[in-house]
Amino acid sequence: MTKKNAPTIKDVAREAGVAVGTVSKVINGRNVRQPYRQKVEDAIRKLNYEVNTYARGLKIRKSNLIALIIPNTLNPFFAAFTDHVEAALYEKGYKTLLCCADGDPDKEIAYLTMAMQNKVDGVIALTYSDIGSHIADGFPIVVLDRFFENRVIPRVASDNFSGGCLAVEKLLEFGCRHPVYIRFHSVFPGESDKRKDGYLHACEKYGLKPDFLDEVDNPDASSMLLDFLNRHRRPDGSLTFDGVFAHTDYHGYMFLNLLRQEGYRVPEDVQIIGFDGIRKFGGEQESLFISSICQPVRQLASKCVELVLAEDRSSVPSLTLLPTRYEYGGTTRKQREI
Amino acid sequence: MTKKNAPTIKDVAREAGVAVGTVSKVINGRNVRQPYRQKVEDAIRKLNYEVNTYARGLKIRKSNLIALIIPNTLNPFFAAFTDHVEAALYEKGYKTLLCCADGDPDKEIAYLTMAMQNKVDGVIALTYSDIGSHIADGFPIVVLDRFFENRVIPRVASDNFSGGCLAVEKLLEFGCRHPVYIRFHSVFPGESDKRKDGYLHACEKYGLKPDFLDEVDNPDASSMLLDFLNRHRRPDGSLTFDGVFAHTDYHGYMFLNLLRQEGYRVPEDVQIIGFDGIRKFGGEQESLFISSICQPVRQLASKCVELVLAEDRSSVPSLTLLPTRYEYGGTTRKQREI
Repeated sequence: MTKKNAPTIKDVAREAGVAVGTVSKVINGRNVRQPYRQKVEDAIRKLNYEVNTYARGLKIRKSNLIALIIPNTLNPFFAAFTDHVEAALYEKGYKTLLCCADGDPDKEIAYLTMAMQNKVDGVIALTYSDIGSHIADGFPIVVLDRFFENRVIPRVASDNFSGGCLAVEKLLEFGCRHPVYIRFHSVFPGESDKRKDGYLHACEKYGLKPDFLDEVDNPDASSMLLDFLNRHRRPDGSLTFDGVFAHTDYHGYMFLNLLRQEGYRVPEDVQIIGFDGIRKFGGEQESLFISSICQPVRQLASKCVELVLAEDRSSVPSLTLLPTRYEYGGTTRKQREI
Repeated sequence: MTKKNAPTIKDVAREAGVAVGTVSKVINGRNVRQPYRQKVEDAIRKLNYEVNTYARGLKIRKSNLIALIIPNTLNPFFAAFTDHVEAALYEKGYKTLLCCADGDPDKEIAYLTMAMQNKVDGVIALTYSDIGSHIADGFPIVVLDRFFENRVIPRVASDNFSGGCLAVEKLLEFGCRHPVYIRFHSVFPGESDKRKDGYLHACEKYGLKPDFLDEVDNPDASSMLLDFLNRHRRPDGSLTFDGVFAHTDYHGYMFLNLLRQEGYRVPEDVQIIGFDGIRKFGGEQESLFISSICQPVRQLASKCVELVLAEDRSSVPSLTLLPTRYEYGGTTRKQREI
């Protein structure tokens, strides 16, 4: 018996005269031969080994492994997030099991199933599956960015709504009068959808008429951008917009190249602000591809780690939003123009 | 009994009337209560369960985990390597334990020690420590790029020497007459040192006078590049070199920006070829930062996986070199100029 008089898995094993592993197998519904199973079940009853004690018993078998399920590490945002998660976990004595599951729900589910077999102590995930149905109540999991409507799973994200507003406000501050919004989005809903909400909110607040390109991401993105450009070209060649808020740095940079190719000057004719804060060559000291609303990737990672390791699961908020910030990256005017 | 008549750990467990886990514990000298230990030992004797069978027994306890020790996933080359290693391991039924050990020998050694405790089945490493002294003979380990002079450890790398030659040959093919070499290198020796050897070899082969900047990487790299530029400026402002082979895309891109800032046109006045093949935003379909000698990062990853999982360790070569290739990235002339 422990000091607190609550029986542990070890007490059950001692009482039943079996190994702790056998008790664990019985608890987890795995195959145990009948005489041993009977002994364990008798001991559990005799000691009044309860559900909360059961949870404590599971903790004894900690793997000190956390599974990180992300699409890939090729995307610089995911790569930076992975780097920071690994560092934050290591600092807390945990190791990182990396799963790059891009577009493969089977792979995501294989990892979640493994997690459920108590082979990892928790999961940090950015997945494309409906993972809610694959995880047990109370299992330590934190998701980055995505929604899971059918299940409350703690979620960490940048404050995309405020970030969307900030992009418009910065464009206005730097002299734009007609900021448009361009977006090629995933078919999966997520927190980043709120960037558009932020744009629309800012338009209403500042009396602007919303004007946007909003399409599912596809291989024809660049020709869609060219169509969008042509629809906004006056007979004299000038454009009816003078600012662009791009849903991601990636598409903002694509639009920058297209604008320059078509003979427009950035930031003189058109200013561009992206979203993400992707840096060239990945270095934290390096310059951005374009001016951007930067996600706090290091803080997102440490918040995910903090929450997945939280002792008291009931204290973990269902949604944690971290603030974004604007940073100059060459595609906006440096000085405020009145 | 199996078909080959060699008893397995399962046969021992069946004979002893205990779980396979109990046999495994006895074999591995872990704590097992006397009556069970006795049963297992009797069964081992009765079945003549032998050393080579024992080794097979150990295999049953495979973790199916491979530790990947790299500096970080912020650098796009390491990020891509990580992504490809994870995919190649997953395909073979293995999971990836990620260790980003940048500049922390303690962390590298902690992972290697864990590996030696049979918690992982192998290690793929790009480390800065003398890891030779931390691994047992015959343990499955493969290193990327680095030398370990005091111990033969299987090593996989790009063919940096040929890549260095190729850079010079391409510059000559595109019309350069005076290619220089710039390099800011790590204090740790590695396969990439051979890029310079390749440059020097090509100079000799084509009757060129070698001219280079070769410094340890440092925060003053950009002012050193400016000094180098000034030393090569004629009184009329023109430069005494017309081609640059940069040791990495990173420093090549830095030099590109400096040259343009100083009013030189790239590729008209100066052509630049880097090394690595770093792509913008990490995507495999994206454009390069500069024209480059590209490392075959996907093939490097799958070769490392193939070798770390090789059944017969004695068949693993001590050095495997994979070919590089040139790719246009905007800083060279597209057409051959005679």
